[in-house]
Amino acid sequence: MLSRVLIASFLLAFVSPVFGETKSEPVEPTIEHGSIAAQYQGAATKIIDAVMAKNQAYERLEYLCTRIGHRLSGSNGLTKAINWAVSVMVKDGQENVRPERVMVPAWFRGAENALITHPRAQPLTILGLGGSVGTSGKGITAAVVVVEHEDDFLWLDEEEKVRGKIVLYNNKMPEYDPETGSGYGTTVRFRSKGASMAAARHAVAVLVRSVTANSLNTPHTGALRYDDKYPKIPAAAITTEDAELIARLIKQGEAVSVHLSMNARMLPDAASANVVGELHGSTNPEEIVIISGHLDSWDVGQGAHDDGGGCIIAIEAINVLRKLNMIPRRTIRVVLWTNEENGLRGGKAYAREHEAELPNHVVAIESDSGVFHPTGYSVENEDPEKQEIGARQLRDIMRLLAPLGPMKITTGHSGADVGPMRQGGVMLMGHRVEGSKYFDYHHTAADTIDKVDPEELSKNVASLATVAYILADMPDRLGTTSRKEGATH
Amino acid sequence: MLSRVLIASFLLAFVSPVFGETKSEPVEPTIEHGSIAAQYQGAATKIIDAVMAKNQAYERLEYLCTRIGHRLSGSNGLTKAINWAVSVMVKDGQENVRPERVMVPAWFRGAENALITHPRAQPLTILGLGGSVGTSGKGITAAVVVVEHEDDFLWLDEEEKVRGKIVLYNNKMPEYDPETGSGYGTTVRFRSKGASMAAARHAVAVLVRSVTANSLNTPHTGALRYDDKYPKIPAAAITTEDAELIARLIKQGEAVSVHLSMNARMLPDAASANVVGELHGSTNPEEIVIISGHLDSWDVGQGAHDDGGGCIIAIEAINVLRKLNMIPRRTIRVVLWTNEENGLRGGKAYAREHEAELPNHVVAIESDSGVFHPTGYSVENEDPEKQEIGARQLRDIMRLLAPLGPMKITTGHSGADVGPMRQGGVMLMGHRVEGSKYFDYHHTAADTIDKVDPEELSKNVASLATVAYILADMPDRLGTTSRKEGATH
Repeated sequence: MLSRVLIASFLLAFVSPVFGETKSEPVEPTIEHGSIAAQYQGAATKIIDAVMAKNQAYERLEYLCTRIGHRLSGSNGLTKAINWAVSVMVKDGQENVRPERVMVPAWFRGAENALITHPRAQPLTILGLGGSVGTSGKGITAAVVVVEHEDDFLWLDEEEKVRGKIVLYNNKMPEYDPETGSGYGTTVRFRSKGASMAAARHAVAVLVRSVTANSLNTPHTGALRYDDKYPKIPAAAITTEDAELIARLIKQGEAVSVHLSMNARMLPDAASANVVGELHGSTNPEEIVIISGHLDSWDVGQGAHDDGGGCIIAIEAINVLRKLNMIPRRTIRVVLWTNEENGLRGGKAYAREHEAELPNHVVAIESDSGVFHPTGYSVENEDPEKQEIGARQLRDIMRLLAPLGPMKITTGHSGADVGPMRQGGVMLMGHRVEGSKYFDYHHTAADTIDKVDPEELSKNVASLATVAYILADMPDRLGTTSRKEGATH
Repeated sequence: MLSRVLIASFLLAFVSPVFGETKSEPVEPTIEHGSIAAQYQGAATKIIDAVMAKNQAYERLEYLCTRIGHRLSGSNGLTKAINWAVSVMVKDGQENVRPERVMVPAWFRGAENALITHPRAQPLTILGLGGSVGTSGKGITAAVVVVEHEDDFLWLDEEEKVRGKIVLYNNKMPEYDPETGSGYGTTVRFRSKGASMAAARHAVAVLVRSVTANSLNTPHTGALRYDDKYPKIPAAAITTEDAELIARLIKQGEAVSVHLSMNARMLPDAASANVVGELHGSTNPEEIVIISGHLDSWDVGQGAHDDGGGCIIAIEAINVLRKLNMIPRRTIRVVLWTNEENGLRGGKAYAREHEAELPNHVVAIESDSGVFHPTGYSVENEDPEKQEIGARQLRDIMRLLAPLGPMKITTGHSGADVGPMRQGGVMLMGHRVEGSKYFDYHHTAADTIDKVDPEELSKNVASLATVAYILADMPDRLGTTSRKEGATH
């Protein structure tokens, strides 16, 4: 039997290239002598093993999600979360733990509801869009026109069909594609700008099909941006199911009317804060590696994947390193941003107030794509050459994360909150994860702790702690190549 | 190059058995000479080709879902649907089209809401259970105790922990398993009986984790059954997310209180009807093959998969046969049952009022598992031998459905509404479909037309029309073997 198998193996090895069907064993990543990876192989193994054996990320995320809950800018929930995050990092023994005060917009949802009034009464499941004005006391009742694409406005305008109406934006988000991603970037445009696009044409309100490819009658909120040139009109997300119902009725020739009532309003700006805590560098403490997530969320669900998880893995990354007494040369600074969802005041304030210090920011990493299985990092710099060198160095480092699964380095957009540092020349990075479910939960009441897998969460901590440690310790700054081994690749 | 490929092919053929990796071509189902399948091969091809080329099922289901909507027993929606179904079958030229009057229970949901009041205010997403009593005007506020399994009552009872409390049943539905199915049958027990189980222990209300393995904060309603021995207490489904939140808070040592307000009530019984329509048999019109679904639904969503789809494919099956002028020997009778969801009054009334006629019922097929990809049929008879013969004959017939995909015959439970005919000796059948998503939508606002795939719907029509035609036309009655070819298998 052994000889038969051996022969077969030999033959298969010969035959396979012709058919291209060889099942290749997963290749062990090659670590080149003298490379960054070679230097940090021991450190990486130590960090990953420690994190995967035990860490506090899940219990901390569970606390944030269940005991504090959602955390919209200006809410008590966010204030509680800020105080809690400070207390956690103090308890962990981190340095320079502090809230950095930022004033944030305070939008209040209030009671809201909508229903189809014609051709038959049918309640709609809605979530007003963040930043929307409310309706007047009695609400708005008007006929609905459907817009699937900007071009639809051409004929609607001509026939004066938008004036006095409620516009329903019914553009579909595509199914998630592992190659091209979610399609969120383009699908979201009507949620962001649709209210003013409709107001420019004298509509009285807008309904937006929730930005998701999968729905169980689940409305997705999110921010809108009014264009000052036009009147501010109320805007709410409806579920894909309700959008389909209205669009199908209209396609069948029915006139559809909807009643919309929203008590949403803007309150005066409220005091908030970015939360900062540090693992101080041993020899170059003035040089900084930021790891970060945003602590604010929408006012539904628990902000588990968006972005409680991103905050917790940053807190836990330096907690683990300190416990292992692995103090890198440079400082690792955790920043938990405020107001990512509806203003970006936290990210903007940080870039402004730390402007003088930005040249010392070696890299700023943000995690804001959920805490599913980690898949690598993006890297972004306004200098394409530095970006390319950084990407090359990171690809080298990724070999060390092989125990966590295959990792990939991409270039480009890395995070909203770190974005304002781009102009200061800071190298930006985004922590990337498997993305097929993120937008199912995004900005909904379903973004809850039960959607987070403890094992996947731990892998995120392991990845982030390892990468932050190496970037804070390696002789060259990410994106520079003074040393030979960097230059030989 | 050619010779290299030839050699490689030869070698691969030699090697493959060792590794067990041969890619076998799908086997064409063998149709035995003289079998039922052999007799009806031409008919089946004709029906399937015609249905897959064109049919009205999707546009009719869309009408039912969007223009009429949900259809709870006693509602205007159900009355409209009954009248519409009658008019459709009359228009199709069917015979003996009629509503058969049945009185049904009329449960009215009314306004309802719930929120966690302690440790922090948090609204809950609920759907009262069908048949539940309401709360008093002010609602009920009480501490919550969690029950994951009946055994939990043992210690809860001992410590008098249930008295005066709200019981949360937090048993999880497993993920769908293609081998063992959904696990609905056992998971649903707390929804059905939990209110009285808790009332027996002096609870004041119950919350039930929605019976689903997948949720986007989606509550699932469904019927409860009160045990007359105990007080009737209010009962509502909450989402899996909300159930997790409460259970986790309590596990963390928090006392959780909930306020529940429900205006649900029973109204006097209302007039309703089973809708009947026939394709009259050419030589044995007194012998009947029933094809059926239930026209009532819950009072949310559109009852698209449950069970608008089942009704429409039955209507469309005889529509197609009549258009093809394929009139079988026996009568095919469409029955659209009323009140499957919360009383089964339609199915019971039919069995009672048609009792004398039951010996002439050759078979009664129900479709009530959604209209996903069709996968075959179940067969059920109180005589195991007849059931076995029926299954064998159906396996033969299934070969003709190969163009629609692989089909399987199982034995056992076939449908709630046809169930009351079992005691009359009638052969029952259930139309089966791919089941992985059915319970995601079941009894929710997400059971809507956009969840129905037109191609899959057509395949259901093709399967049902073919099987109904053959069962109504084949010389032997299903489950009997007077003729030789039946006995030789």
